Amino acid sequence: MEQIEELLQRFRTGDTSMDEVLKKLRILPFEDLGFAKVDHHRALRTGYPEVVFCEGKKVDQIIAIYQALEKQEQSILLTRASVEVFDALKKEDERLHYNELARTITLEAEEKEKQGLVLVMSAGTADLPVAEEAATTASLLGAHVERIYDVGVAGIHRLLAHLEKIQHARCIVVVAGMEGALPSVVGGLARCPIIGVPTSVGYGSNLGGFAPLLTMLNSCAPNITVVNIDNGFGAGFSAGMINNQK
Amino acid sequence: MEQIEELLQRFRTGDTSMDEVLKKLRILPFEDLGFAKVDHHRALRTGYPEVVFCEGKKVDQIIAIYQALEKQEQSILLTRASVEVFDALKKEDERLHYNELARTITLEAEEKEKQGLVLVMSAGTADLPVAEEAATTASLLGAHVERIYDVGVAGIHRLLAHLEKIQHARCIVVVAGMEGALPSVVGGLARCPIIGVPTSVGYGSNLGGFAPLLTMLNSCAPNITVVNIDNGFGAGFSAGMINNQK
Amino acid sequence: MEQIEELLQRFRTGDTSMDEVLKKLRILPFEDLGFAKVDHHRALRTGYPEVVFCEGKKVDQIIAIYQALEKQEQSILLTRASVEVFDALKKEDERLHYNELARTITLEAEEKEKQGLVLVMSAGTADLPVAEEAATTASLLGAHVERIYDVGVAGIHRLLAHLEKIQHARCIVVVAGMEGALPSVVGGLARCPIIGVPTSVGYGSNLGGFAPLLTMLNSCAPNITVVNIDNGFGAGFSAGMINNQK
Amino acid sequence: MEQIEELLQRFRTGDTSMDEVLKKLRILPFEDLGFAKVDHHRALRTGYPEVVFCEGKKVDQIIAIYQALEKQEQSILLTRASVEVFDALKKEDERLHYNELARTITLEAEEKEKQGLVLVMSAGTADLPVAEEAATTASLLGAHVERIYDVGVAGIHRLLAHLEKIQHARCIVVVAGMEGALPSVVGGLARCPIIGVPTSVGYGSNLGGFAPLLTMLNSCAPNITVVNIDNGFGAGFSAGMINNQK
Amino acid sequence: MEQIEELLQRFRTGDTSMDEVLKKLRILPFEDLGFAKVDHHRALRTGYPEVVFCEGKKVDQIIAIYQALEKQEQSILLTRASVEVFDALKKEDERLHYNELARTITLEAEEKEKQGLVLVMSAGTADLPVAEEAATTASLLGAHVERIYDVGVAGIHRLLAHLEKIQHARCIVVVAGMEGALPSVVGGLARCPIIGVPTSVGYGSNLGGFAPLLTMLNSCAPNITVVNIDNGFGAGFSAGMINNQK
Amino acid sequence: MEQIEELLQRFRTGDTSMDEVLKKLRILPFEDLGFAKVDHHRALRTGYPEVVFCEGKKVDQIIAIYQALEKQEQSILLTRASVEVFDALKKEDERLHYNELARTITLEAEEKEKQGLVLVMSAGTADLPVAEEAATTASLLGAHVERIYDVGVAGIHRLLAHLEKIQHARCIVVVAGMEGALPSVVGGLARCPIIGVPTSVGYGSNLGGFAPLLTMLNSCAPNITVVNIDNGFGAGFSAGMINNQK
Amino acid sequence: MEQIEELLQRFRTGDTSMDEVLKKLRILPFEDLGFAKVDHHRALRTGYPEVVFCEGKKVDQIIAIYQALEKQEQSILLTRASVEVFDALKKEDERLHYNELARTITLEAEEKEKQGLVLVMSAGTADLPVAEEAATTASLLGAHVERIYDVGVAGIHRLLAHLEKIQHARCIVVVAGMEGALPSVVGGLARCPIIGVPTSVGYGSNLGGFAPLLTMLNSCAPNITVVNIDNGFGAGFSAGMINNQK
Amino acid sequence: MEQIEELLQRFRTGDTSMDEVLKKLRILPFEDLGFAKVDHHRALRTGYPEVVFCEGKKVDQIIAIYQALEKQEQSILLTRASVEVFDALKKEDERLHYNELARTITLEAEEKEKQGLVLVMSAGTADLPVAEEAATTASLLGAHVERIYDVGVAGIHRLLAHLEKIQHARCIVVVAGMEGALPSVVGGLARCPIIGVPTSVGYGSNLGGFAPLLTMLNSCAPNITVVNIDNGFGAGFSAGMINNQK
Repeated sequence: MEQIEELLQRFRTGDTSMDEVLKKLRILPFEDLGFAKVDHHRALRTGYPEVVFCEGKKVDQIIAIYQALEKQEQSILLTRASVEVFDALKKEDERLHYNELARTITLEAEEKEKQGLVLVMSAGTADLPVAEEAATTASLLGAHVERIYDVGVAGIHRLLAHLEKIQHARCIVVVAGMEGALPSVVGGLARCPIIGVPTSVGYGSNLGGFAPLLTMLNSCAPNITVVNIDNGFGAGFSAGMINNQK
Repeated sequence: MEQIEELLQRFRTGDTSMDEVLKKLRILPFEDLGFAKVDHHRALRTGYPEVVFCEGKKVDQIIAIYQALEKQEQSILLTRASVEVFDALKKEDERLHYNELARTITLEAEEKEKQGLVLVMSAGTADLPVAEEAATTASLLGAHVERIYDVGVAGIHRLLAHLEKIQHARCIVVVAGMEGALPSVVGGLARCPIIGVPTSVGYGSNLGGFAPLLTMLNSCAPNITVVNIDNGFGAGFSAGMINNQK
Repeated sequence: MEQIEELLQRFRTGDTSMDEVLKKLRILPFEDLGFAKVDHHRALRTGYPEVVFCEGKKVDQIIAIYQALEKQEQSILLTRASVEVFDALKKEDERLHYNELARTITLEAEEKEKQGLVLVMSAGTADLPVAEEAATTASLLGAHVERIYDVGVAGIHRLLAHLEKIQHARCIVVVAGMEGALPSVVGGLARCPIIGVPTSVGYGSNLGGFAPLLTMLNSCAPNITVVNIDNGFGAGFSAGMINNQK
Repeated sequence: MEQIEELLQRFRTGDTSMDEVLKKLRILPFEDLGFAKVDHHRALRTGYPEVVFCEGKKVDQIIAIYQALEKQEQSILLTRASVEVFDALKKEDERLHYNELARTITLEAEEKEKQGLVLVMSAGTADLPVAEEAATTASLLGAHVERIYDVGVAGIHRLLAHLEKIQHARCIVVVAGMEGALPSVVGGLARCPIIGVPTSVGYGSNLGGFAPLLTMLNSCAPNITVVNIDNGFGAGFSAGMINNQK
Repeated sequence: MEQIEELLQRFRTGDTSMDEVLKKLRILPFEDLGFAKVDHHRALRTGYPEVVFCEGKKVDQIIAIYQALEKQEQSILLTRASVEVFDALKKEDERLHYNELARTITLEAEEKEKQGLVLVMSAGTADLPVAEEAATTASLLGAHVERIYDVGVAGIHRLLAHLEKIQHARCIVVVAGMEGALPSVVGGLARCPIIGVPTSVGYGSNLGGFAPLLTMLNSCAPNITVVNIDNGFGAGFSAGMINNQK
Repeated sequence: MEQIEELLQRFRTGDTSMDEVLKKLRILPFEDLGFAKVDHHRALRTGYPEVVFCEGKKVDQIIAIYQALEKQEQSILLTRASVEVFDALKKEDERLHYNELARTITLEAEEKEKQGLVLVMSAGTADLPVAEEAATTASLLGAHVERIYDVGVAGIHRLLAHLEKIQHARCIVVVAGMEGALPSVVGGLARCPIIGVPTSVGYGSNLGGFAPLLTMLNSCAPNITVVNIDNGFGAGFSAGMINNQK
Repeated sequence: MEQIEELLQRFRTGDTSMDEVLKKLRILPFEDLGFAKVDHHRALRTGYPEVVFCEGKKVDQIIAIYQALEKQEQSILLTRASVEVFDALKKEDERLHYNELARTITLEAEEKEKQGLVLVMSAGTADLPVAEEAATTASLLGAHVERIYDVGVAGIHRLLAHLEKIQHARCIVVVAGMEGALPSVVGGLARCPIIGVPTSVGYGSNLGGFAPLLTMLNSCAPNITVVNIDNGFGAGFSAGMINNQK
Repeated sequence: MEQIEELLQRFRTGDTSMDEVLKKLRILPFEDLGFAKVDHHRALRTGYPEVVFCEGKKVDQIIAIYQALEKQEQSILLTRASVEVFDALKKEDERLHYNELARTITLEAEEKEKQGLVLVMSAGTADLPVAEEAATTASLLGAHVERIYDVGVAGIHRLLAHLEKIQHARCIVVVAGMEGALPSVVGGLARCPIIGVPTSVGYGSNLGGFAPLLTMLNSCAPNITVVNIDNGFGAGFSAGMINNQK
């Protein structure tokens, strides 16, 4: 930004020509042009957390990344984080919170009241880590989150018992492995957008989650969109965004 | 059979040796040995219809096959039969009945009262041809058949309205395309074996029926077995057999 | 409903016993119990259109379905409708509107001002039918819709020219065939939920749309959810719902 | 249940209005309504065992689940259970029985004579764990079970030696990996429903069991239905149900 | 050949240098070097027919190719040939023979007595075109060919009736669509190499022949090799070669 | 461009403030900023042709697109063009040339001598349309192109006869269907980059070109890169670019 | 056998009736009927070894199986055998030989001179275990085996150096991972049947051996058949059978 | 070579006949004929390094291979090499250099100035090993290499900041996992050939790298070719060759 201001200043004082200014404008790294709108990360900072995907990174690397982020005072979310990572980071920053099931580490920039309602539902107990990742993420984006777990389609009455909450949610994240049929049933009961998250839970022809992924993509309910297998984070993020619309 | 009797007769009268008899027994075509139990078709004739798959066969061929079957007086089922085939066969045998939706031609050997209850359910109207093929087949095997159509999982209350019938069936054939979630939900409501029939109805990632096939195979309900995509005949046949167990 | 009221009345007057009431309540079809909340279609009528998928249905059938719907005075959407269908329905109801590219027929129940902003973007001209289906659907749900077409990732400057609109949308539907990379790029520029719609446009290893579907599911942008291949209707429906949150 | 009775009592005494009763009935959790027929688990208790899938659960969790079940006095089946799980549960309940090959733990509620005949057949020795899981499950549902193992299609005479049993079974579970051709051959010899169980036994293009799965789905015998890869439990459960029909 | 002789001649007479000869030898097109052993076509001419794959070629092109081949007096095989192609070629050469089922046109160079025994077996009538292509090809390579058709594994006794021929063949081509289990059963009965030919006959999860292809590749019989889907020609060619070994 | 100049002019004269200039710069559509380097199409115009993909477009649309391009005087390439398209365009512009096999229409902006050497090789006659598309494209980019057709790996001596040309090429496009092995063999003989083009030519397990695509991707020769199935245009374009490097 | 003889004896002496004999013949286990020809294992004993697949079996089990086989004096082959298995078996039988690369343990029943020529070729060093398994198997069936390793298609001259042996073989086993192109090239140079063995050697899009499997199935050489991925045993067995034809 | 010279010498002196010379020429191993052009490795030695793929080879084997190569004085590249391999080789040859990230060991034959510009770009940090393998390889072939890492499409402004370098490169290697969209965007900005390298980085429906592979193959930019998943070496090798064209 300063670079451009300086350039324009020199142009006004006649120290540089029109041609020179135009040439520079074309070449200058976009960042320096100060295109705040293009800067994805800055855009997200207005309410959205910084996110670090920990899987495949070493503890040292994660600490270094964290230290760089921390200075900026926004909310922070670390996904797929082991206990080891948490123990190491905890020494850096006491404010951090760990959700062992979700494998998330979170830092909330300021204590704001959660608003709206994001419902996170799951079919089986094995789907919980993915469901919790979604719940934690949506919560960090400011959503009031409620969980309804262990409501598979083969025991439909347990699902129907939660009809009222289903109809009051602003967005519902439905996590399901095995045959992945839950989002369709919930989709027919709800008035809000549903985000289906297929999980790799199952065996045999489950295909590592492709079976429930295909089920959800082919749903006959019109209000269902889908994220990648086991991608609780993405579902929670979009759900949080939708919840914030209001 | 006569061949063996003759052989044994000659053995008793000393016209042939022990060695000769043993050698013949090993070589004689199995059919001639009269292994009635091995003869699949004869076994099935005790109550089960002869079946002709018409797709890919010419009208002439089908007539010829029919004339051979007809003499044997058992029930007959022709699947995947066009109106042209029916019109031609009708001239051969006035007793034939055509189900245009199912594309089946049937001849009931004797008018016996239908027994038990096979329920045929389907999710969408596009699944009807497959569902009707299953219904016709099960009926020809002697089952009392009832149909519950257009009960998708995205409108679960329409399904629940039929709870009583679901709980009284001896076997339920559930036909579904799209996401194929219906058998799981029905499986959780029923007390009898469920046979899932995935259909190739759908588009996009339906994969010609593989999406609902995978859904059904991965069902978390324990009482579901599955047949090939669009195989209404196979589902109806197995359902008819199960219904006959009682 | 009346059935239950009558039952309860008789219970109060002593004409029926507690046991009898409990038994009836268990058996009565759910619909008759008047579970309005369970009734998916009634729920959707509050603002959402009735939808008819025309593909595979005959003109006669569609007219019959339409006549049943029409009496109920809500908005109506017919998808995958040919010109023949429109010509026939037009005679039934002059108010109908046809979008030839989208192959949709629409009836808006009342003229309400469109609100919010749903952006529908597409990469190539061949993706337009799917994009238009999404646009028409979102509009019928009450969204103000703008279209930005022909902005592929291989000509990124054309996309960047629309930065401002991208940042003001409440929800963006991004339709793309070929490699399906557009949602990722848009996702990085936007602050709202993105719904990716892969199309079957392409050849070779496009796999009938599976290539862009996988691309979108694997996107590294956190605000992307996906619908089935060519499912412009589903994307438009969810986008309309999200837009209505505000 | 009590909740409803109480409600109705108050209605009869005039302490609550008709409107209030109707409103409550709509909202009350379904379970509380006492819809015995909808309650899948209770329905199954009439003869069917409670089932716990142990894979992925910790010993502590399984013990807790077991303790909850035990009080209800029905038969219990734990599948995919390690020796460690059995050793821990044995201390809780001496009556438990472990089938190491099948990895099942069973408790039979009452000693009833087994009835009918479920035949469990397998092609290779490597398929035994899946076959035993099927056999144990069917037995727990009350079936008299007989096993015929190591009868592959490449040695057809060994299979034919069992022709008589094949023709007397009420249901046959056929377990096969590799090419999965056994169900087709058995299907042609039997008069009862066949349930094929593909296993992940094999290598190369076996595709983790997809090769035998496809083989079974495409069988030209009309009396074959199929369950998921390695799903001995599901096959045994459906077979037990079919056997109970009589 | 003449080119090299001439070169060497000039070398001997001193008209060219050693260096020049070596340089030429390196560059000369291999064909001109007269590497008879490398010349695939010439090698095959010793007993093997010239082969023309007609699919996708115009009648004119096929006639031109035929005229070039004809001068060389060896046997000729045209595969996937329509009646139109045959009618046109017949005018060129009266000796040609057409097998309509196999869609092959053949010319036998000389009338030699067929030797050995290649058995061609098929499961269903729909597999006949592929089976006939194999039979015609093997015959043209000099094999005595016998056909056993319509012997599926679901009617095993029909197959066993042919046990003696199966045990006397030098090579057996087994053609099967649907589940493709026939080669495994035949493999267990035979003492010679089996060549499996999967066909694209079937529907649903047949996957255009991939289901029987996988079945055959995973066969537990040790004497089975496989060719491409519908590749009767390749199976017949290899079978003919094996039959000629003796 | 003019917009920016005007803006800067007003800034220099004091008619607008620094803040105003910076704000405008951020918002102005990128195109208007005159980022010539970002403009993909303009960049390519320096030597590269404009390209129109005709498949799926109507003749009217193509004429309209052509008329827009024509004014700009660069070379033009229309791919997947039918004779009908050519006949219609020919009336617009007599200079156009049609390659029927390649289905390309070309206009060369100026007659420049072709330079370097791009070799286009193919395995079978059925691969010719794709090979010719590659050849036409590379030629239009300025390459001297030579064709070596019908040199499959099963007749390796025919390939070796062209060794010298293979070693003098700057880039070789190798087109192959069936098993797609040709690029590997050529890769081992050449000193330049090889671009493999798999074609959908074949049947059975060819999978519409996926078999040769996988073959080429897994090649053990280090100098092979691959384009999409049947994508002769892309291969020719990259080959032309590589050839131009010198 | 004795059972039947006894039965016939009693028939001749009038101690049993014709009806009784016929009934018994139908029921007697086929084995007891003495259908030597049907007995697969006995048939193979005439020259073919007994085979034990060790993978997944415990050392104890293998010793038990070995002890049963040993008494029968034929050749024995154990495949996929670890050193541990060999060390344990060596104590049972000193005559055993271990090929560590092939992981085979062999016992040759009698020292016969090897005959004919089976060539085993492989592309890379990583393919050697599979190639050695094929070589060991073919040798045990009586074939003179020669090995040509490390001759990939990207260095075609190394392959051509072995032209003479290629043309003298009775059968060639070609083992290849990566792109799997070697069988096609060898097929064009040879006059005998080729058996292709794809291996799971490779990475990326190799798909665990499916890439070379597809390559080989789609080969344009007519004399190639294929076995399952990594199935060196099956290739060696069929090659040994073909070699024995002469 | 000497063998041929000697032969020709004897021919000139009359010690051998014309026939004898021709016969020998046909049989002599190709290598002995001195077909330098056919010798792939010798051809590559002119500027290209010898390459050893270390994965799956033991340290001893690699040392042996290295010692054989070392004598020939050309550049050497060992890929997929562990630290253990490097430590062992270092003792053999002090000049060796190890890139731990790329897992490459390199020896540059002579210090030549790097020329041209190969750009290696990557989307995420997890793609670095593959990117570094490409960079090291291209450098060893003589290219001046620059790296631009961590420029994913979801943060497009970071990519645009490098526009100038992108437009000056002779070849760009673009490495990307997840959705693999980066090559398309770069392709639209560049004037040179792009080589896309999909990586197996990702989870869920990434399919071990197939998702980005399909994305790249379906790119709508015309200047993109692709190599196998994770094949940084192949991309660097082709890029180095293209860079050397100038």
